[in-house]
Amino acid sequence: MINRELRNISLMEDIKKLKLITAVKTPYLPDGRFDLEAYDKLVHYQIEHGVEGVIVGGTTGEGQLMGWDEHIMLISHTVNYFGEMIKVIGNTGSNSTGEAMHATEQGFAVGMHAALHINPYYGKTSHDGLLLHFQSVLSMGPAVIYNVPARTGQDIPPSVIEKLKDLPNFCGVKECVGNDRIKSYTEHGIVVWSGNDDQCHDARWDFGARGVISVVSNLIPGLMHDLMIKGKNKKLNEKLLPLIEWLFAEPNPIGLNTALAQLGVVRPVFRLPYAPLNLRKRQEFVGLVEDIGREHFVGTNDVQVLSDEDFLVLQRY
Amino acid sequence: MINRELRNISLMEDIKKLKLITAVKTPYLPDGRFDLEAYDKLVHYQIEHGVEGVIVGGTTGEGQLMGWDEHIMLISHTVNYFGEMIKVIGNTGSNSTGEAMHATEQGFAVGMHAALHINPYYGKTSHDGLLLHFQSVLSMGPAVIYNVPARTGQDIPPSVIEKLKDLPNFCGVKECVGNDRIKSYTEHGIVVWSGNDDQCHDARWDFGARGVISVVSNLIPGLMHDLMIKGKNKKLNEKLLPLIEWLFAEPNPIGLNTALAQLGVVRPVFRLPYAPLNLRKRQEFVGLVEDIGREHFVGTNDVQVLSDEDFLVLQRY
Amino acid sequence: MINRELRNISLMEDIKKLKLITAVKTPYLPDGRFDLEAYDKLVHYQIEHGVEGVIVGGTTGEGQLMGWDEHIMLISHTVNYFGEMIKVIGNTGSNSTGEAMHATEQGFAVGMHAALHINPYYGKTSHDGLLLHFQSVLSMGPAVIYNVPARTGQDIPPSVIEKLKDLPNFCGVKECVGNDRIKSYTEHGIVVWSGNDDQCHDARWDFGARGVISVVSNLIPGLMHDLMIKGKNKKLNEKLLPLIEWLFAEPNPIGLNTALAQLGVVRPVFRLPYAPLNLRKRQEFVGLVEDIGREHFVGTNDVQVLSDEDFLVLQRY
Amino acid sequence: MINRELRNISLMEDIKKLKLITAVKTPYLPDGRFDLEAYDKLVHYQIEHGVEGVIVGGTTGEGQLMGWDEHIMLISHTVNYFGEMIKVIGNTGSNSTGEAMHATEQGFAVGMHAALHINPYYGKTSHDGLLLHFQSVLSMGPAVIYNVPARTGQDIPPSVIEKLKDLPNFCGVKECVGNDRIKSYTEHGIVVWSGNDDQCHDARWDFGARGVISVVSNLIPGLMHDLMIKGKNKKLNEKLLPLIEWLFAEPNPIGLNTALAQLGVVRPVFRLPYAPLNLRKRQEFVGLVEDIGREHFVGTNDVQVLSDEDFLVLQRY
Repeated sequence: MINRELRNISLMEDIKKLKLITAVKTPYLPDGRFDLEAYDKLVHYQIEHGVEGVIVGGTTGEGQLMGWDEHIMLISHTVNYFGEMIKVIGNTGSNSTGEAMHATEQGFAVGMHAALHINPYYGKTSHDGLLLHFQSVLSMGPAVIYNVPARTGQDIPPSVIEKLKDLPNFCGVKECVGNDRIKSYTEHGIVVWSGNDDQCHDARWDFGARGVISVVSNLIPGLMHDLMIKGKNKKLNEKLLPLIEWLFAEPNPIGLNTALAQLGVVRPVFRLPYAPLNLRKRQEFVGLVEDIGREHFVGTNDVQVLSDEDFLVLQRY
Repeated sequence: MINRELRNISLMEDIKKLKLITAVKTPYLPDGRFDLEAYDKLVHYQIEHGVEGVIVGGTTGEGQLMGWDEHIMLISHTVNYFGEMIKVIGNTGSNSTGEAMHATEQGFAVGMHAALHINPYYGKTSHDGLLLHFQSVLSMGPAVIYNVPARTGQDIPPSVIEKLKDLPNFCGVKECVGNDRIKSYTEHGIVVWSGNDDQCHDARWDFGARGVISVVSNLIPGLMHDLMIKGKNKKLNEKLLPLIEWLFAEPNPIGLNTALAQLGVVRPVFRLPYAPLNLRKRQEFVGLVEDIGREHFVGTNDVQVLSDEDFLVLQRY
Repeated sequence: MINRELRNISLMEDIKKLKLITAVKTPYLPDGRFDLEAYDKLVHYQIEHGVEGVIVGGTTGEGQLMGWDEHIMLISHTVNYFGEMIKVIGNTGSNSTGEAMHATEQGFAVGMHAALHINPYYGKTSHDGLLLHFQSVLSMGPAVIYNVPARTGQDIPPSVIEKLKDLPNFCGVKECVGNDRIKSYTEHGIVVWSGNDDQCHDARWDFGARGVISVVSNLIPGLMHDLMIKGKNKKLNEKLLPLIEWLFAEPNPIGLNTALAQLGVVRPVFRLPYAPLNLRKRQEFVGLVEDIGREHFVGTNDVQVLSDEDFLVLQRY
Repeated sequence: MINRELRNISLMEDIKKLKLITAVKTPYLPDGRFDLEAYDKLVHYQIEHGVEGVIVGGTTGEGQLMGWDEHIMLISHTVNYFGEMIKVIGNTGSNSTGEAMHATEQGFAVGMHAALHINPYYGKTSHDGLLLHFQSVLSMGPAVIYNVPARTGQDIPPSVIEKLKDLPNFCGVKECVGNDRIKSYTEHGIVVWSGNDDQCHDARWDFGARGVISVVSNLIPGLMHDLMIKGKNKKLNEKLLPLIEWLFAEPNPIGLNTALAQLGVVRPVFRLPYAPLNLRKRQEFVGLVEDIGREHFVGTNDVQVLSDEDFLVLQRY
């Protein structure tokens, strides 16, 4: 029962050191509930291959399709079963400050190590509103701020980050705007993770980023570990780019969901509005796996091309 | 107990005729609950001044800051007390198909006349996903599709609308992309409402729009009735543009909330992430009211400049 | 927009006059959602045969198996479609004062005419606690207090009712303890409804009860109308007693659910923990219908004996 | 990642061995949220003084006044911070099978060691229904069945327990009916915990009970450890009876809440329908503490008599 403030400071230092964080996929059972058995195997594989942290219920993990009760349950489950082996960052952000407060409070109560906080997407707000929103949620525990204007419809400008960076629980920024923005932040002592797999190698080795919060690491955590931790490796980066490009042909996590199903590590079950990639894309994936090497990918089954009939796409969940 | 399908067809015809629809503001009590007394007065004033429909819990009404239970309660309340005088369109859309299905089902069960359906903002999806999402929710009852890429991060392209327009419950589109897009739709027989107050006069009289789903009509429903129903009126339109510009200086509904508080028709209570406009802007508003004439605005109190201390900004609600 | 206090007083007078109120059954679809089409027919039949009020989501209607959102939705639906023909009393009571406050507030917001309030079952409390609980919920609108110690584990004693009876929104008591208790209340000017179908005739004609809140009236509203409104009728009462006895052989609404399924007016779908009556009992029911006359029962299909396989018993809903 | 079935068998054996389990109090902040700091101290004190398990969100812990999300959060929190030191039994039972399934699934997902399952109180059901209910929830993980007819309105008869006892996850029964019932169960090899503090000494040493699920152990865990584990001790038992009698003068946890507030270990905050014991009773408590010895009670502050004004009694939470 150590002092909470001390605990937070210690957690912040741990969070700031992370170089490879996976925005982990949430697998489903045929009735739409979480497939925790498949999830546990995914997380376990991440840990075995050098991933240092996970984002639970991020956009990749489809937090936007979860009720808060199942979202907090998944954070809690992850802390309980893996919290001593990997840092657990719960995506308890929301475009509603009230919801974000409630979820973040619950997330810390169940032991998550840090929160990921998005700016209020869709509803948007003024810069005054942004500051009040982030001040409210940062009061609760260590937090990473997440900027992805292509999703939120609103950039968090450097002027706002500048005001947040000295708040007690501010760990850093997951930034998707690009490496120039990253560079300007890191030059001012702000910890930044790239939110773009295709730019993360350069971000890390040339622009000062601490690391990456990655989607592709769901598939190839070991190679991403090499890329982000073992040192600059342009050749490896180039080798991975076609896979990354494939992965983001449609809004994430459509590609990832399709890939993991074809690798046989999750059931081919989608919660709408996500639907599988088309057959041509599904066929391409097999070639990409062969180029990189099946042994670098999660799971042990042969990669296969699933047919339209293999997929279950759920309206209600 | 008439046949549901017949009822829907009849509702669709009624919805398609609406020219002036207000995305109505949701007022709050100091503890963050809905102020239904103030709400009822607002809706009543709308009806008295020629508004034909309301969007309940839209982005203007801060549906994104409501729990679904209070959101459905507000739709139901509006149907019960005003449903015979005005068309009630519930914003039961969501970026989660499961949530949208659940909310839309409940909305129709409590008697709403139509649903407003947004594409999956923030999470986004593929065109296949868009179609499956809209097909799912359109199966439940009359619906208006809402396109606002500046909020959602993703345009609903004409190719998708083209596929939706012949589905049974499709009423039309609330379009914010601009009047050229509107023109191309209306030329193909699609009913369109402008989602931009500053463009709605031209949209209606020059580009074929059926009408507007308006924010500014919360303040001046009578003038908006003149503008949209009485005939082309460039002079009036120009007179209103400064107010409209002021209203959208910050993301909506920040301006509207501030204005209604200064007009004395709602308590100066904000749910974060929304915060009041700054003092300079609040002072400007008084001038705008004077230019247009206090008598055209909702409420009977003198317009006043509120001080920072007058506002209550809530983190939890 | 009449004054709320005046509205409540007017509603109270209307509620106090009701002689025949049905605690209406909630029918289900095979996936466990409400079957609103069957529900509407049930309520419609009630109205046609002289029932004056319905309890929505009572113990008979399985409010205890509903989420609050669907519970409020059902109240709202009933108000919207039938509120001008029948009084709608929502069972917004709870053993949690917080939940009861929330649900009752929502119930009145969607237009219910009165609330039914149980004492805190299972958790129980002191007499001080009972008073504070009822004072809290009575502050919101017209209410009937419900006493059924065989379910709650705790009698609401006359000493507590004595203190409640002069509170603004107190309409009366649904009392299941027996006709002597009813007599003592009615002699003191308290409006009482019998909660026991087998005692309601005597309660009404010999012990001063205003009427009944009935289960059996789901099946035979017309005969219950005769029994409670047309005058003392011992012969009819005796004729109905075997049916009533059959109905309560197992905890209500097990018998009612089974009966309505065999009459072909609801699907044979149960939400656990309720399960159908056994085959022997199901066979008995056919004889009871024949004795009383099929024409007096709800629905138009022949009554049939369903087999075990005909029933769907749901764990999750 | 060991096999779930094996894990359950191992947990069952651990659960069956527990002799002293506390139904732990949930403390509140002035706004009604959980006071986790006070809770952690309470649980810590329990562990230090020999308690082997806790029931989280039982009737004593006021699970009936919790939303399921905060209920699961509290179970999860307890597992995370204390799960290696004490067995965590979540009260995920409900009178709704659907709710019990959902909550129990979540409880096991967040790592609770066993569930406590009540029969469907208030709604009640047939014996067939009881069996189907318990079979449904027992399928999910180790469970203790809880029988307390004075709260539920319905006894779980030995004939039902007889059918449950060979199901895979059946650990035993928390029985409140009395020591004769306990004796008959233990003679048939069923593990039983007494649910009555005043009978638990005899239950344990004369009637075969494995131990107790206790309320008074919140206050005096060390003495209860002596009573239940160190051997038969009639003298100690008699010494504690006046305190136990005081504790249950009003429905539990009214006495416990009052006592803990006066001992200075929880804030004097009540969620309605619970209200503090009256002043006379509060004064009596000080004498009881002196008789037994302040040093045996939880906390370090002097015991005091709180005045009516010291208590905060909340309607909404």
